[in-house]
Amino acid sequence: MLTKEGCNKRRERLWASLPDSVEWVLISNPRHVKYFSNIWLNPVSFSAGQTVWLHLERSGNATALADNFTLKSLSGEAYVDETVSEIWYDGKNSVENRDSKQAIALKKHFGTLDLRTGAVEEDSLAIAALETIQGKPELNIKLGDVIKFLRRKKEADEVEHLKTCMRACEAGHVAALEYVRAGVTDMDVYRAVHAAVLEEAGRPCVVYGDFRATNAELPKAGGLPIGYTLQDGDLYILDYSVILDGYRSDFTNTIAVGEPSSDQQALMNACIASLEAGEEALRADISCKTIFDLCSDTMVAKGFEPLPSHAGHGLGLEHPEPPAIVANSTDTLLLGDVVTLEPGNYIPGIGGVRIERNYLITESGSENLSHQRIALR
Amino acid sequence: MLTKEGCNKRRERLWASLPDSVEWVLISNPRHVKYFSNIWLNPVSFSAGQTVWLHLERSGNATALADNFTLKSLSGEAYVDETVSEIWYDGKNSVENRDSKQAIALKKHFGTLDLRTGAVEEDSLAIAALETIQGKPELNIKLGDVIKFLRRKKEADEVEHLKTCMRACEAGHVAALEYVRAGVTDMDVYRAVHAAVLEEAGRPCVVYGDFRATNAELPKAGGLPIGYTLQDGDLYILDYSVILDGYRSDFTNTIAVGEPSSDQQALMNACIASLEAGEEALRADISCKTIFDLCSDTMVAKGFEPLPSHAGHGLGLEHPEPPAIVANSTDTLLLGDVVTLEPGNYIPGIGGVRIERNYLITESGSENLSHQRIALR
Repeated sequence: MLTKEGCNKRRERLWASLPDSVEWVLISNPRHVKYFSNIWLNPVSFSAGQTVWLHLERSGNATALADNFTLKSLSGEAYVDETVSEIWYDGKNSVENRDSKQAIALKKHFGTLDLRTGAVEEDSLAIAALETIQGKPELNIKLGDVIKFLRRKKEADEVEHLKTCMRACEAGHVAALEYVRAGVTDMDVYRAVHAAVLEEAGRPCVVYGDFRATNAELPKAGGLPIGYTLQDGDLYILDYSVILDGYRSDFTNTIAVGEPSSDQQALMNACIASLEAGEEALRADISCKTIFDLCSDTMVAKGFEPLPSHAGHGLGLEHPEPPAIVANSTDTLLLGDVVTLEPGNYIPGIGGVRIERNYLITESGSENLSHQRIALR
Repeated sequence: MLTKEGCNKRRERLWASLPDSVEWVLISNPRHVKYFSNIWLNPVSFSAGQTVWLHLERSGNATALADNFTLKSLSGEAYVDETVSEIWYDGKNSVENRDSKQAIALKKHFGTLDLRTGAVEEDSLAIAALETIQGKPELNIKLGDVIKFLRRKKEADEVEHLKTCMRACEAGHVAALEYVRAGVTDMDVYRAVHAAVLEEAGRPCVVYGDFRATNAELPKAGGLPIGYTLQDGDLYILDYSVILDGYRSDFTNTIAVGEPSSDQQALMNACIASLEAGEEALRADISCKTIFDLCSDTMVAKGFEPLPSHAGHGLGLEHPEPPAIVANSTDTLLLGDVVTLEPGNYIPGIGGVRIERNYLITESGSENLSHQRIALR
C-alpha cells in the first residue's frame, strides 16, 4: 500500500518537473492516478475497466472525479482532499451511460476554476473532458512522458509495496519446485502456483506470465498455460508476476521435468553466470547497454549464443517499463530504479532456460528483491 | 469465444442504428472493441491496462490500431481485415511512451482517408486522436450510448460464451458447498472457489464478488474476503462472477455455517419464493418495475421487509449493466437480454441471505443459465 507521505513526495517531484506557469494537472492514466493518490480500482471487482480522474493543484489540493459506483471498488485509502462523485446507480433507478459520468463530474468541479493554465494527459484523457477544459490546458507539455520518467525513481513506500508482491511471488516458486513433475499439465502448475500466491498474499490478486514447457523440439514457448502434459526431459520456464494494487513482481526459474541432461545443466549454469555478471555491475549511472553486454558476453564465454532478446527491464506499475536493458539501449540506470535481469537461451536439441531476479538500484549498487531458489530441481 | 459471424451481425446492427451520413466509426471502449472484433486484451497478461482501437467502415473494412506489444496479449482471434501496429518495443532498443502509439498508428492509417463523416466514442477516445480526426467526426452522435443499447440483445455467440462462464461459476459453487464450515476463513473459501473455477475453465480467469459471512450482529457484508474465520451460526453469502474474455457470470447462494436456525431457513425460503415469483414473470416487453414489485411483494408476503436494493440487473461485458430491475425502473425487458434476479434480505438477529440466478430472455419467456444448487446446506 502506498502512503500519504509517498504520494506527497511524488506530487512535489511532479511540480518541480513542470513549468511554473502550470497551476493544475488533470491525471487520467489509471497508473498515474494510483501513483499520486493511492486510488486504484481493484481489477478483481465489478468496476474493473472503469477509471477515476485526479485533479491536482500546485497549491496542494487534490480532487478525485468518478461515478459513485466506481468509488466503491477502490483497493485502499484515497489520499485526496475532496471527491466529486456523480451518481450513476443508486439501486432504485434506471441508469444512463456510466462512462459519461466523469466528464459530468469534471464540469461541475471545474466550473469553480478560473482560466488558469494546466496540463492534461492527452494519451488517456477522453475527448468528453474538452467541453470543460478547452483552451485551458497546455497541450505542448507531454504530461504522460513527464510522469513516466518520474516513475523510474521508486519512493520508499513503493519499494515496501513491491516487496509484498515479491514475497507472494516467492511462495508460488516454492510450490512449483515441489509440484512440477511428469504427468501434470502446465495448467495444473498454474493452479498450484496461484493457490500458493493467494495464501501468501492473503487477498485476491492477479498472477500472469509464462507457464510453459520447452524441450529439445520446442525450445522457445511463452504465455499462459495451454493444457500441455509435462514429460520427462522438458524444461518448464516459470516466469510470472504477482500484481497487488497495480505494482508487480517479475521473476523466473526454470525447472527440469525428471533428471536434467548435462547440456540442460550447462545451459542453466551459463544463465546463472550471465545473471551474476549483470548483477555485479548494477549501480546508478551505468549504461544499460553495458549491463546487456556483460550478460550477453558471459553467455558466449560459456559456449552459448548471445542473448536473443533483452537482458532485463524496469518494473513497477507497468511491465516492461524503462529502462530497457537491451543491445542498443540509450538508457542509464538511476538511483531508485527497480529492474529485472533475465538472461535466457533457447537451444534446439536442449530446450529453453531463463532465470530472473528483481533489483533496486541503491547508493551502494543494488539490492536483490527476489529470493526464489534458482535451480533446475 | 465470439465468432466472426457474430461480430458481423453486431456491426450490421450498428450501421443500421447510425445515420447514413456516418461512413466510419472509431471504437475505443475496450468492451466495444471486443464486441465488434473479438479483440480482448487478457487482463491476466503484461498488457493489462493497454488498449486497442478499432476503425470500422460502413463499406465493411475493419482495422485494429495498437502498439506491437499489446497485440501479443490478445485472448483469441482478431476478426479484422487489417492491423496497424506501431512498434513500441522490439527487445533491442530503448522505448518511448507506450500510450502514445495508438494515436501515431491512427495518424498513419487515417492519412489515407478523405474528410468523410464518422463517429467516435467521446467518453473513451483520447484527446491525442484529435490531431488526426479533428473536424471529421460527428460529435453529436453519442456513439457509446448507441453501442451500449445494442449490447442488450445478446447474439448466439455471446450466449454460448456466457454459458462457458456459467459452467465455471457453477464449479466454484459446488466446491463452496463442500468446503464452508466453522474454522475456515472467508479467504480460504475464496481460494477453494478459485481453484475449482480454474479447473473447470481450464485457463486463467478473474473471479470477483462477495465472499463474506453475515450473522445476527452483522447482517450485511459484501466484497472480497477479509480473513474472517467462519463460525457456527454465520450465513456465508457467495455472490461472485467469473470473467472469461470480458463476459461474465454472476450468481449467488448463501451457505449456513453449521445448522441453520429456523429463522434463517424462513429467510432463505422467502428469498426462494421471491426469486420464483420474478422468474415466472420474465419475458420480453414486461416492465422491469413489475418484476421488481413481484420479487419485493413476495418477500413481504413471506413476512420480511421489501427488497432493500435491486431485484436484478443486466449482465454481459459489464456488471451491472442495463436493464435495472429496481423500484423506479423505466426499463423494459428485451428479447436477448441476459439478466440476473437476486432477491436478498439482511435482518438483525438473523443474518443475511441472498440468492441469484442468471436468465436469457427468449421467445418463450426465459431460460435459466445458472444451475448451482440453491440451499443453506
